[in-house]
Order: sequence, then structure tokens, then C-alpha cells
Amino acid sequence: MIVVLKPHVTEEQIATVVRMVEELDYRAHVIRGVERTVVACVGDERGDHQLGHLESLAFVDRVMPVLRSFKLAAREVRPEGSRINVNGVEIGGKRITVIAGPCAVESKEQVEAAAVAVKAGGAHLLRGGAFKPRTSPYAFQGMEDEGLRLLEAAGHKAGLPIVTEIMDPHDIDLFVEHADMLQVGARNAQNFSLLRRLGRIKKPVLLKRGMSTKLEEFLMAAEYILSEGNPNVVLCERGIRTFETATRNTLDLNAVPLLKQWTHLPVIVDPSHGTGIWSLVTPMALASIAAGADGLLIEVHPDPAVARSDGPQQLKPERFTELMKLLAPVAKAVGRSL
Amino acid sequence: MIVVLKPHVTEEQIATVVRMVEELDYRAHVIRGVERTVVACVGDERGDHQLGHLESLAFVDRVMPVLRSFKLAAREVRPEGSRINVNGVEIGGKRITVIAGPCAVESKEQVEAAAVAVKAGGAHLLRGGAFKPRTSPYAFQGMEDEGLRLLEAAGHKAGLPIVTEIMDPHDIDLFVEHADMLQVGARNAQNFSLLRRLGRIKKPVLLKRGMSTKLEEFLMAAEYILSEGNPNVVLCERGIRTFETATRNTLDLNAVPLLKQWTHLPVIVDPSHGTGIWSLVTPMALASIAAGADGLLIEVHPDPAVARSDGPQQLKPERFTELMKLLAPVAKAVGRSL
Amino acid sequence: MIVVLKPHVTEEQIATVVRMVEELDYRAHVIRGVERTVVACVGDERGDHQLGHLESLAFVDRVMPVLRSFKLAAREVRPEGSRINVNGVEIGGKRITVIAGPCAVESKEQVEAAAVAVKAGGAHLLRGGAFKPRTSPYAFQGMEDEGLRLLEAAGHKAGLPIVTEIMDPHDIDLFVEHADMLQVGARNAQNFSLLRRLGRIKKPVLLKRGMSTKLEEFLMAAEYILSEGNPNVVLCERGIRTFETATRNTLDLNAVPLLKQWTHLPVIVDPSHGTGIWSLVTPMALASIAAGADGLLIEVHPDPAVARSDGPQQLKPERFTELMKLLAPVAKAVGRSL
Amino acid sequence: MIVVLKPHVTEEQIATVVRMVEELDYRAHVIRGVERTVVACVGDERGDHQLGHLESLAFVDRVMPVLRSFKLAAREVRPEGSRINVNGVEIGGKRITVIAGPCAVESKEQVEAAAVAVKAGGAHLLRGGAFKPRTSPYAFQGMEDEGLRLLEAAGHKAGLPIVTEIMDPHDIDLFVEHADMLQVGARNAQNFSLLRRLGRIKKPVLLKRGMSTKLEEFLMAAEYILSEGNPNVVLCERGIRTFETATRNTLDLNAVPLLKQWTHLPVIVDPSHGTGIWSLVTPMALASIAAGADGLLIEVHPDPAVARSDGPQQLKPERFTELMKLLAPVAKAVGRSL
Repeated sequence: MIVVLKPHVTEEQIATVVRMVEELDYRAHVIRGVERTVVACVGDERGDHQLGHLESLAFVDRVMPVLRSFKLAAREVRPEGSRINVNGVEIGGKRITVIAGPCAVESKEQVEAAAVAVKAGGAHLLRGGAFKPRTSPYAFQGMEDEGLRLLEAAGHKAGLPIVTEIMDPHDIDLFVEHADMLQVGARNAQNFSLLRRLGRIKKPVLLKRGMSTKLEEFLMAAEYILSEGNPNVVLCERGIRTFETATRNTLDLNAVPLLKQWTHLPVIVDPSHGTGIWSLVTPMALASIAAGADGLLIEVHPDPAVARSDGPQQLKPERFTELMKLLAPVAKAVGRSL
Repeated sequence: MIVVLKPHVTEEQIATVVRMVEELDYRAHVIRGVERTVVACVGDERGDHQLGHLESLAFVDRVMPVLRSFKLAAREVRPEGSRINVNGVEIGGKRITVIAGPCAVESKEQVEAAAVAVKAGGAHLLRGGAFKPRTSPYAFQGMEDEGLRLLEAAGHKAGLPIVTEIMDPHDIDLFVEHADMLQVGARNAQNFSLLRRLGRIKKPVLLKRGMSTKLEEFLMAAEYILSEGNPNVVLCERGIRTFETATRNTLDLNAVPLLKQWTHLPVIVDPSHGTGIWSLVTPMALASIAAGADGLLIEVHPDPAVARSDGPQQLKPERFTELMKLLAPVAKAVGRSL
Repeated sequence: MIVVLKPHVTEEQIATVVRMVEELDYRAHVIRGVERTVVACVGDERGDHQLGHLESLAFVDRVMPVLRSFKLAAREVRPEGSRINVNGVEIGGKRITVIAGPCAVESKEQVEAAAVAVKAGGAHLLRGGAFKPRTSPYAFQGMEDEGLRLLEAAGHKAGLPIVTEIMDPHDIDLFVEHADMLQVGARNAQNFSLLRRLGRIKKPVLLKRGMSTKLEEFLMAAEYILSEGNPNVVLCERGIRTFETATRNTLDLNAVPLLKQWTHLPVIVDPSHGTGIWSLVTPMALASIAAGADGLLIEVHPDPAVARSDGPQQLKPERFTELMKLLAPVAKAVGRSL
Repeated sequence: MIVVLKPHVTEEQIATVVRMVEELDYRAHVIRGVERTVVACVGDERGDHQLGHLESLAFVDRVMPVLRSFKLAAREVRPEGSRINVNGVEIGGKRITVIAGPCAVESKEQVEAAAVAVKAGGAHLLRGGAFKPRTSPYAFQGMEDEGLRLLEAAGHKAGLPIVTEIMDPHDIDLFVEHADMLQVGARNAQNFSLLRRLGRIKKPVLLKRGMSTKLEEFLMAAEYILSEGNPNVVLCERGIRTFETATRNTLDLNAVPLLKQWTHLPVIVDPSHGTGIWSLVTPMALASIAAGADGLLIEVHPDPAVARSDGPQQLKPERFTELMKLLAPVAKAVGRSL
């Protein structure tokens, strides 16, 4: 259930609602929007009729059930949309946010070169994998702790907050210390243990859709994080698995406008994994923004030919710069900026 | 094999090549591009080495095998891209072509109202189904012959050439007489008997991708039409069938830039079927153009609430007009016009 | 709607019901089961309440709506299951029916050798493609008319009725003359023009599931044939298209028990196309029968290594004989016989 | 690379090979089959040519590359197949192993009733979920620690070793203490952190295929466990995600014979999740065994109508008993026993 408060309620009134909700054995999440404050109530649905009584309070506008299975992620909770702050960079506003960098951190030189290049091209955040989820246990698994530190240093030097993938709940403290945004990869999209733990920190989480995750399940995965208390979730469409083999994945851009209708969380797109082919990255990046995405995740490598993973889908720095140039007029055409 | 001729060959030289190719038991298709003329040779591949001897002719540039399974559809055959003329309206040039109209022709009033509305909104071609492929034999099957005539009349009155779906090879003469472009629906994407017969006419064909047709198979379906002698084929991405049920189909926009790289045929997108939800049609139409599509197929109904088929995905006329307004700046941003 | 008559009704009473149904502008299909006769009413559903009045007749048991979209195919119509007679061979009874033969008819010698071999192995019907639906227009398209005649002759000589695929409605008369059962391939599973025409003949039809046809749609395709008056339809599961590439298709054996619950039509399985790998054909054939299938479609070629199509999935004659030996105890274990 | 030793090598000779392999910076896994001992070498493939020199040793038969990406799981490593011992119950031998029990442990009474019932029906192992991976954070998440202890007690009382799902690497010690076999669910099939940790214990692992995991990826997931030193892995096909919505998942029985050809690991099938519909469980269980599966995982609940999760797919005890009766002759027909 969601308790929608009247405009201009006081902190005391909010506290009253929270207390009453908690007395009914629900957890209360206060969500402060620009226009309204709402209190989302998480608990056993069998008590929902009791929550209805809150409508008798003078400063409560209405108590409404959430019809879809996701609650805190629902658009209704924050109709104006969420803006997530990643160490000073906002995702979800009018400006398109571009996250770029190599698939994997491979060396100090490589990640620094990538950081300088994507900064020059106009990226706002630096990405790079230190712990890599690889299908084979015999493939390069990432530089791990050292990779994380190299990425942090490169980001710091270039003036870019960093985003990197976490695979093991065990590593959360390490990531909280060194990273600005924690990415959950497609293979862990329904690793509920990991999601719950990420709900107990405050760092922003970049949650990728799983290869066969339906959109409603995707929002339920976000709900695992939100319901533990971390509101800083950004969704990322990265392609789904279908019968088509010409592309590595099938980038599902339908997801962008549909998610924007269903949820207040920002939605970005990863055309690098979504296509698996560098020559498709730019057109699909433009299409993503035209479809309403709030940002992009683009793999850029100083020299894709020698990349230790995913070479065919990484852009050269000059191609990334060109992409950014082509992106500006498209963003403007749909009322956004870069 | 493809025989690429040198620039500025004479008609006589072309005729010489054709004759030599035919003497080797191949069928020869002459394809005249802006820069080059090529002769595509269709026949038993075991004779391919003999074709190689044509390279000794002074006006032959080179003889090259087509590595992919499609030949006549391959980009190499016409690097500058094909432009298909539909009774005066061109598809495949710099200008975006918009085909719009109701899912099904339901009455004289309905189709005329739709024609007037889409013309006013800026559409270039009128669509409407007279013979409808319906999952159930008990569902409305279209107005058939009468529907075709009503569509023709409405298009004529509004000054729009018409596009409509053909299901049965038996009806080809009727369609050639009354329609300007013949559409092959997703369920007939690999109905090879129908494709072959459409290869023997000259009217343009709008070939929709099947629900589970891989892109290479899609081009092979086009190849059935091309190899019979009809070069006027336009491809249409309309969504594929995946596990996702939130949308009717999964519109695969990866297909747009990939097809544009592989083939010289124009590629348009149908976001109405591709999403099945009217509120997603506009964002996905913008995304299609940003991805490089040459045109759009949009379902517009004067009153979707009373439509006899596919109501939820048809736009009201005013929403179509709005879509066209939003489309113009996106088209401009990617170097196209409306 | 379905009008269920009381046991032991007279022909005159049946005729009365038919007349009354037709007066209400429905088409009436009389279906005579062992225990009951039912009259299926096909027409505009808006008149359904009028049909309800038939319950007032003394010899009418009840008038029931068909909840699923298929009517004539519904199990309720013939709870004991249909048995289809293919020139003396029954499909749908206690005995498992095995259809075997080469993918394509390639020569007189090849098809005769195959016919002799599958007859010796215990097959009941001979299959072979004369008109082949090939993804590429440049691939072997079958021996066409001549192939059909060679297949007919080989079947006649071996004492086996023949099954072969029809692709074009234009060829129906030819097929009715020469074949005992007409197969509709996966690519034409929703070619409604073809299905309708096959509904107007009496020859049994073997309807294959399309690569992305849902089970309900599959039964609706059968309904196209049934609703035109041909009750002789056998369904064939042949694998669906999924993300898995280790096998040519994903044989969906869930379809077997589910279809048997939903419909009275016999259900057979094609493990040759369903797997695309000869070494999987035998285990999946055993599994099909254990799941409740009424028969099998097995590709057998005298020499798969030189086959002109689908070599990797065709069995050698000795392997087919072995399959049949392994099949007998499995059939017995589930209360069937060979 | 795999070093195949000659028959009848001594322990000393094996130790020599291991030492030499390790000197080349590979990890060596000694795998003792009935006929042969092989040493699998895990490490950087660039040193593979050096391993080839081991062929010069008198007691080495040959050094062969593993062509597929999985090595330790490959059939060649143990051609006779692995048998995994779960606290006295063997999986992978001639006898079919049946694991049965409720989806979730709900109470002492429920799990004890289930244990008694499945034991009476003939099951060999008891299953039950204590920690449940649920799509929604608001759904019943299992009885957790208490559930695990109740399951252990019920298994002990009924004389059945227990199998239960682990979701968090953090819980491994708890599970090792209380469970006989640890299950990895479909959503964690590529949770590489969890798989690695399970590779460092000795308890048998029941690894379920992910919803969109290709068979080769499935074996690579097993390889994560094997390559860390735990050889006790049993694979479980449980249905994949496809476009078909009539069943909860599409049980991919092609996987059974294909996996049996590719790997020496035992393969069992879960028709309860694979279909999601109780009335399909028995036919698909029979089909699984006919296809060559080594066992079954069947959900049985004393009263499915009141189950807190997955009620529609759980069998009543009497239906489970009936399934086992029908299973016996099918197992016998394919040379197995119950």
C-alpha cells in the first residue's frame, strides 16, 4: 500500500504516519518527491485493509494499493521521476548521462588511456570491470582488487566517478570504499542475496537486466534493493537472449519507454553488450536516446584489437568521440542535452 | 557470383556479359547502380569457376563470390542503396517515408476518415488490411475484395498510393490491379510459393520479417523475390517473438543498422505491431529513425476503441499528427528529412 | 457453442438440431463420437445466447460455450480421441504409428531403397519430400511432380501409404491424386489460405507446429482445417525455435501431454527435425512415446552422407531398425503397442 | 589438456605426471576411472604445447587437447560416467534416483508428512526449500535456518538424505552441516562466486540449468565447481524460457541425451518446474527416463491447495505413488531400474 500525503505536510505529520504504519507491523519507507511525500508500506498484504484507516487523518490524501507487484519502484510513487546522484553526477535529469570505459581493467596504462579518452569525448562516468563474470573458469577473471584500485586512480586523475561490477556480497565493503557506483551484472540480476545486501548500503546501484528477465521481474529485482532501504537504483537494458544469432543479444528498446511509464527509476542502455558488434553501437546509442533513455553505457578501449575480453564490441576512442558528436543533435531533438 | 563491370560500360558490353553468363547455364540479372553496373549470376554453384574467366574481358572489373548465402540482396551489389518507387513515392532515399492507416478496412467511412487524417498528418502512403490473417478462423477476416476497392478509392481521393497485404498467390492479379504495393505478412515470411510468384510481377513488395525469422533468413526470403526478377523489395522489421510478454512482440531495432550494412534494400519499421501498445509507438518510431530506418509503418484508426482488430496498438489521428511533429527534428538530427 | 445431444438420439433429431442451428445463421458440424454426438456451431458469437434455447429440446443434453478459442479441436467434442485413417493405417489408436522415409526424394533408387528399408524396420507409412521448402532459393528445391510420382510408386511397391508436404494451394489436386496424407510444414503453419483449402478436401492432413507457434495458435491452425469440413487432422510437434543452438530446434515434449488434454486430435512427434542430430533421434523418439505421443515421424535415408538435404539428422536403415526394437518395450510400458 | 595414462599405472607414476604438470604452472586434477586414470591440466592455454612433451613418458598413453571449452566435465575424461554418492544414495548408476518433497518447508507437520509420503512412494532423497529465491521480496522467503533443521529432522526420521537450495555463499557452513546435497537454483546458475565456493567443499552439488543457459554454458558452470576440486556435481534440466506460455517453462529433454554424450556427470530432470502444471508431471517424468535421465526431482506436497509456493505444480502423495508405479516399467524398458 502507498499512503499519499497532502502537499505541505510537516515532518511531525510524516513521523505520525510512519509510527502508525509500523504499529500495524509494516515497514514504512518515506519517499520525498518534489510535489508530494508518500509513505510506502512493506509487509503482509493481509493487513492492507487496516492501512486504509489512515485515510481518516487530515493530512493524508489517499491510501492506494499498488496493483502491480512492484511497489517502491512504481511510477506512482514519484511521478516526476528519480534523479540519482553518483558522486556529483546526476542520472535521471534532463541531461543524458554517458558512462564509458573498457570492458575490463587490464593495466594501469590501459585504464588511464581509456579514462583520458572518454573524458575528452565527453563521458560523465568511467566504467571498467575489475572482477569479471566469465562463462569459463579458464578465461581472464579480471585484475580483481588491484584492478579496482587502478580504476579508482584513473577516474580520480581524469575527474570521473567510477562504476564497476560487484559479483560477491563478500566484497561489498571493498567496493563501497573504492567505487562510486556498484554494477550488478546480467547473470546476477536475480541473485537475491546480493541484491538484499546492496539494499543496505547507500551507494548507487546500476542494475542490469538479466538475459531472460521479464520487465516486471526486472523491477522486482530493483524492489529487493529498494525495500531494504537503498533508493539509489538505476536500471540498465543490455539486451535479452532470443533466437537471433546475428547479434550477441537482442537489445530490447521497447523496455525503455515501457519502464519509463512503469517506474520512476532512471533507465539507461548498454548498446555494447546489447549488440556485441562495434559498428552497431552508435546507431543503437542514438536510438536509445530517441526512445527516451536517460543515459548510455558504452565500452571504449584504447586498442580493442588487443582487449582481453569483448574486443569486437568495444569502440576506439575516436569512434566514441564521433558517437558523442552524433548524439548531441538527437538528444536535443527529444528535448534533452548532453 | 557477381560480375562487377568497369565504369562507363556500354549497353552492348553488358549484353555480351549477359550472353556469356547464360551460355554457362546461369540466369543473369543486370543491376544498374549509380556508379557501377553489376551482373548477378544465379545458378548451380559448381560452375562458379567458369564464371571466373569473365575477368579476362576488358570491361569487367572483377568476378566475386558472394560469401553470405544471399546474393542479389547483398549490399555489395548496390553499395549506394536501392530506392524503390511506389507509384511516385520513393522509399530508400534521404527522405523518411511514412506509411499509415488502419489495421483493417472496416467501412467506406472508416477508411476514408483514416486516409484524410493520415494525409493531413503527413503520411506518404496509405495502408489498410482487406484480407486479414487472423489466428482464429472465427475472427473477422477482413472485407476482402470489397475492402481492397474501398482502400483504393480512399487512397485515390486522399492522393496516397496504397499498401495492403496479400495472403494467397491466387489473388495476385486482383492486387496488381488495385494496389500500389503488396505486403507479405509475418506469417507468410517463409511462404516460398507466394514469394516466388511475387518475384514475377513488378509491383513493389513490402516484406515483413517473420516472428522467428533470423536476419539472414529474412534476406533469403527477399532473395526468393529478387531471384525471380522483381527488384522492388522493401524490408520491414515488425518485432520478433521472445519470452517477454509485457509487449506484444520485441521490436528488434538491432536489425535496422545490421540490415543496412548487409543489404541495399530499404528497411522500414512497424512499431505498432512491434510493441502492440499505442503509448510505445511514438518513442519507438523516433528510435527507429535514429537507428537508421528508411521509413515507418504506423497503424492509425479514426476511433481505435471500436476497431475490429488490434485496437490497443492503433493511434488516434491527433496522436499520429503529434508523432509526425516529434519525428521531424529527430530525422533532421540524423541527416534525413520528412 | 457446442450442443451436446443425449445418448441414442436419432438421425432425425440430429437433423432437427442442425436445421435450427443453421436458421440462427451458424454453420453446424455434426461430430459423432462413440458415446455422444455433438453439434459444433460456428458463427458470430454475438448470437450465442440464442443457441442456448436449444436446451429446451428433449434430446439435447446441454449447450455449452467453448471457453478456449478452439472449438472443433477441443477435447470435449470427442473425449475418447479421434482416430484418423490414412488409406488403411490408423493414427490415434492404441497402436503407435511410425512414419519414416527420407527428407527429400532424390531418385528412384534412393526412394525405393528407403521404402524397402523402413518397411522392413516396421514403419507404417512412407514419408518423403517432393516439393521442398528451402531457406535459400538456390538450394535443391525437390524433384517436384516427378518426385511425387516416384514416392507414390515406391510406397505402392513397399505396401506403404505415403505422406508428403504440400506448399502451394495450386497443387492440391495433384497431391490428392497421388498422396495418401498431405503434410503442412512448419513455415506454413499459419498460411491460412493453404489451411482453408485443405479443409475442403477429405484427405488426412499432417499439420506441423510452426517454429514459433504457441500451442493455442497451433490448435487454431488446425481449427482452420476442421472448420471448413475436413476432420482428418493429425498434429505434429517438431521443435520450436529458442536461444539454444546446440540442437537445431528445441523439441517441446511438454506439448504432447498438453495437446492430448486439450484436443481429441492425434499428436505425433518428429525427433529428426526436433533435434537435428541423428544420435539424439532414438532417445527422443522413446521419450515422445513415453510422454504419450500417438506416433513418430522419422527421417531415414539409405546413405545420409550423400543426402541432398538434412543429412546430419537422417538415420541409416540399420539405426532405424534398432530404434524400432528399442521402441517396442517402451510402447508396451505405457500401454501401447507397435 | 588431458593426459591419458596407460592402463595399470602406479601411484608413483601418477605423482610424477602431477609434479611435471605443476612445474609447467598448470593445476593437475587426477581423475581415476575404472579403466583409465587421466590427469586434467588447468592453466594458461598458451603453455599447451609444452604439455605435449609428456607423451614421451612410457606410462603416458596420449596428451589430448579438449576441443570444447569444458575440460573436467567432458565425457572423454570418464567415459564410463560418474556416480555421485549422496550419503549412501548413488546418482548415475543403473538405478534411477528419485528426489521428492515439497517446494518449500512450511512447518514441522508439513515436511514430516511429505517425507513419510515420498518415502512410502519409493523416493530415495528428500527435497525441500528452506531459503527460497522468490521473484518478489514481499513473497514468502522460506523458513530459513529453522526450515533447514526441520527438513534435516524429517529426512532423518524417514531415512532419506536431504537436498536443499543454497543461495548465499555466506551460508555454506550451515548447509554443509545440515544438508546432504546442496542445490544451486536456476537463477544462480551463473553466480560464479557461489559456484567457486561450492567447488571448495566435498558435499555433492545439484546444479540446475538457468532459464536461458545454453548447454555449453551449463557445463562451464559445472566446470567452475569441478575446477576448484569438488567432483560431486549432478546436473538438472528444469526447463528453459521460451515464447511458449501454456507451460511455465519449456522442459528441454533434448538436453538429456546431448549432455549424456558430452559429459560424464549424471543428469536428472525436474518436470515439476519444467512444466509448472501437475497433470503434465507424470508423462514428462516417464519421458525423461526414456530419454536417458539418471533421475528425477519431483515436487510433492501433502496438500498442494494450501502450499505457500508453486501449488499448481506439486503432486499429491497418491499421485506421486502412482507416478512411481508407472515409472517402473518404463525404467525397465530402457534397461534401468527403480
